Amino acid sequence: MQEELQRLKALIAESYDLRRITAVLDWDQQVNMPHAAAESRARQTALVSRMAHEKFIADETGALLEECEAVGKNLDPESDDACLLRVVKRDYDRQCKVPAEYVAEFAHATSAGHVAWEKAKAASDFKLFESSLQKIFDLRRQYSGFFAPYDHVYDPLLEEFEPGMKTAAVLEIFKKVRPLQVELIKAISERPAPDCKCLSNHFDPHAQWELSVKAAAAIGYDFSRGRLDKAVHPFTTTFSLNDVRITTAVSPETLTALHSTMHEAGHAIYEQNVSPSLEYTQLATGASLAIHESQSRMWENIVGRSRAFLRFFYPKIQKFFPQLNTVSLENFYQAINKVTPGFIRVEADEATYNMHVMLRLELEIAILEGNLSVNDLPAAWNDKMREYLGITPPNDALGCLQDVHWSAGLVGYFPTYALGNMISAQIWECVNHDNPQLEQQIEQGNFEVLREWLKEKLHRHGRKFEPRDLIKRVTGSDIDPEPYLKYLSNKYSEIYGIK
Amino acid sequence: MQEELQRLKALIAESYDLRRITAVLDWDQQVNMPHAAAESRARQTALVSRMAHEKFIADETGALLEECEAVGKNLDPESDDACLLRVVKRDYDRQCKVPAEYVAEFAHATSAGHVAWEKAKAASDFKLFESSLQKIFDLRRQYSGFFAPYDHVYDPLLEEFEPGMKTAAVLEIFKKVRPLQVELIKAISERPAPDCKCLSNHFDPHAQWELSVKAAAAIGYDFSRGRLDKAVHPFTTTFSLNDVRITTAVSPETLTALHSTMHEAGHAIYEQNVSPSLEYTQLATGASLAIHESQSRMWENIVGRSRAFLRFFYPKIQKFFPQLNTVSLENFYQAINKVTPGFIRVEADEATYNMHVMLRLELEIAILEGNLSVNDLPAAWNDKMREYLGITPPNDALGCLQDVHWSAGLVGYFPTYALGNMISAQIWECVNHDNPQLEQQIEQGNFEVLREWLKEKLHRHGRKFEPRDLIKRVTGSDIDPEPYLKYLSNKYSEIYGIK
Repeated sequence: MQEELQRLKALIAESYDLRRITAVLDWDQQVNMPHAAAESRARQTALVSRMAHEKFIADETGALLEECEAVGKNLDPESDDACLLRVVKRDYDRQCKVPAEYVAEFAHATSAGHVAWEKAKAASDFKLFESSLQKIFDLRRQYSGFFAPYDHVYDPLLEEFEPGMKTAAVLEIFKKVRPLQVELIKAISERPAPDCKCLSNHFDPHAQWELSVKAAAAIGYDFSRGRLDKAVHPFTTTFSLNDVRITTAVSPETLTALHSTMHEAGHAIYEQNVSPSLEYTQLATGASLAIHESQSRMWENIVGRSRAFLRFFYPKIQKFFPQLNTVSLENFYQAINKVTPGFIRVEADEATYNMHVMLRLELEIAILEGNLSVNDLPAAWNDKMREYLGITPPNDALGCLQDVHWSAGLVGYFPTYALGNMISAQIWECVNHDNPQLEQQIEQGNFEVLREWLKEKLHRHGRKFEPRDLIKRVTGSDIDPEPYLKYLSNKYSEIYGIK
Repeated sequence: MQEELQRLKALIAESYDLRRITAVLDWDQQVNMPHAAAESRARQTALVSRMAHEKFIADETGALLEECEAVGKNLDPESDDACLLRVVKRDYDRQCKVPAEYVAEFAHATSAGHVAWEKAKAASDFKLFESSLQKIFDLRRQYSGFFAPYDHVYDPLLEEFEPGMKTAAVLEIFKKVRPLQVELIKAISERPAPDCKCLSNHFDPHAQWELSVKAAAAIGYDFSRGRLDKAVHPFTTTFSLNDVRITTAVSPETLTALHSTMHEAGHAIYEQNVSPSLEYTQLATGASLAIHESQSRMWENIVGRSRAFLRFFYPKIQKFFPQLNTVSLENFYQAINKVTPGFIRVEADEATYNMHVMLRLELEIAILEGNLSVNDLPAAWNDKMREYLGITPPNDALGCLQDVHWSAGLVGYFPTYALGNMISAQIWECVNHDNPQLEQQIEQGNFEVLREWLKEKLHRHGRKFEPRDLIKRVTGSDIDPEPYLKYLSNKYSEIYGIK
């Protein structure tokens, strides 16, 4: 009986390897490739993606899955193999529901959509993107149809990125978060802003690079099983559990490479610590986007922007940037935690970040439900920016054209960013409970206990468990926004002297 | 009728793209990849190589080739399509003659062979490699058998790297070359050696890197369609005609990166100048290894080690290495052209290089013919070293274990290095005939006329014509060692004052 399982594993290993190869091609494109090679690289990537998909949805996979059903019933449901069978079946069933013609049409629409979006953003003219975006949303609505019946038209899209998560649950979480976070932002805006002069300076790119390497290594990113490179848009990518690469962008006007690198290192530490027993299967990666984001944002923000971390790391920062020698740790801490409602999500501070996500989620749902037409999107966007952050984007490039996601067809993706924030604080509470010395360890540059806790409770499981189940295993509860709201409130009340 | 041709082209484009993807995976492995990822990368490369092979030798290719026969007869035989049909049929017929079991066994033997060779070389102990090498030579003899009848057992192996070339022709060329080159080396050894103190120094690696970039760009390597990186063993690789990458090795003890980079740039300029009309077909690459080597060695040696080039470039070298400010151009010229019989092929000067190749060819043939047993190889190697270069390797690492080729199963490859030298001089004579101002152009750093000549006569054709046919088209004659012997004799008689 086990023979079927071995055959199934061999089959899925091939599509797994092919997907990792597309990751190599993508990484090379973003890190090394001359622009002139764009066309040939697009062919190569498309070819391998298609082969990976075709191999996976082949009838043979379905037949082997059926043959393996009996095997699965005799397995410990928490064993690697039982989890693998469940996840492969889930992925297979989902992918088989989407017709090949739809896949081709969607690939074409997003390819054209990306070109249109780039032009529209450069010209800051939404009209240039409108018809492409309309097409993409129409196709996404059609996609949901393949999974009917559903509770909400947004459910099948969300499921793509966050298995097991429901639109109703997300909306309920955000309903709790929204008023409290709006209130916090308002309270902050009424207090004097911290002195941020120390961040308006020239920061030598080479020193920023070296500092980023030092930070990533310090928190436990394993450079012997990965590497750091430069890319315009920082990202993490996995070629195998022994080759998880991160990238960073360095700009001399801002000291942002440090925290951006810690963010990517957080993603990478997660992948590097997945159990080797899961290698070459669908399980050899993080459980979901939200859980991944909980790890990146924990290292970037909860650790990286804390006083404890700065007590360890600020002297190293000062060594690289002697201009900071006259800036106190407290001043630096307040400066890197300054709250400024702004137009751009990726530049948002912790207090305002979720508002950018909620805005996008609400607009996505409104369009899919037919309550907002695409041509009214810029106005609706700006209305919400005023409502949530009290500011009005001066143009569409700083408004609804800022993110690449929609042009790539990534509808249902944004909520995972905010859910990641919530989860990061839930996990943080548990780590602190189990390990009351955590703050002192961080102050001493000792991240091992933290990392081992995360590895044991979360990382090693890879994609074995459904995300909500996994969060329950790690924290004892479902996704819960309270810890994050408490974390934000404590942090900013203290910095801003809010009573 | 043309429809079959289009279908054939679509089919071969897929295996072409897959081969280019393996090149990306290889390049990344040699340039970027952490060692820890070796196993997973080997899987990925093996998978894509196998898919490329299977796609190419599929029955469909054979059927389409038959259907296209009629189309081919109506085409101008020099047209891209006619040449493509000829080359695809040649490659297909050859690959189909080799059974899948043999391919698997050979892959296994060379994989194990490479490991054994690395150990043997590190320990300088041929015994550790002997049985692996025996197996590899046995398999290579078996390979020749698939192509029986043949004039010589070495013919099918040579054909793999140098289509249309015969063992008898190579041996005849080398018979002419051997006594004259041995005589030249002897005459040089009787003359006082030039002063080479200027090359015994520390050469800043960063400056060597910058100098290499400058030289590659100067001679016409197009950085907008490629890039230079560092690798332990320098190589050139093509991902598409718009992405031809080169690598170099920089060592602070020697000023070798410059000419090594010019060598790789020579390969790359050839590939970059293949006609775009041939892209995504088997023809979008150089015609053969020997012709490729003629281009790399022309730029490295005939151009790069000439007085004319140094009149243009030596002032730039001095700018990067001020320690050379007191060294005259003539002294530098003589130093970089010093002849020293040595143990290592890749470090050999122009006067001795071919002897290393002849030695290897003769040993390969002797083993395949059964006139030399593998366990006698080290002694036979050392005998020939004494005969040709008057020196005896002190150990096997500096003797018969120095090259990676045999461990990888590359038997029949070495002669192409020497043939490349011959062809480079033949072509050089023709360029000079057509363009009597060449030397002055080079002195002025103007390489455009030379490059355009090469592009028009040679590069643009890619793999359209069989190598010997192509050489006739370019030079008007078959491969002829006379120009190279004349070039060597003139150059070294002048440097060493030989009457």
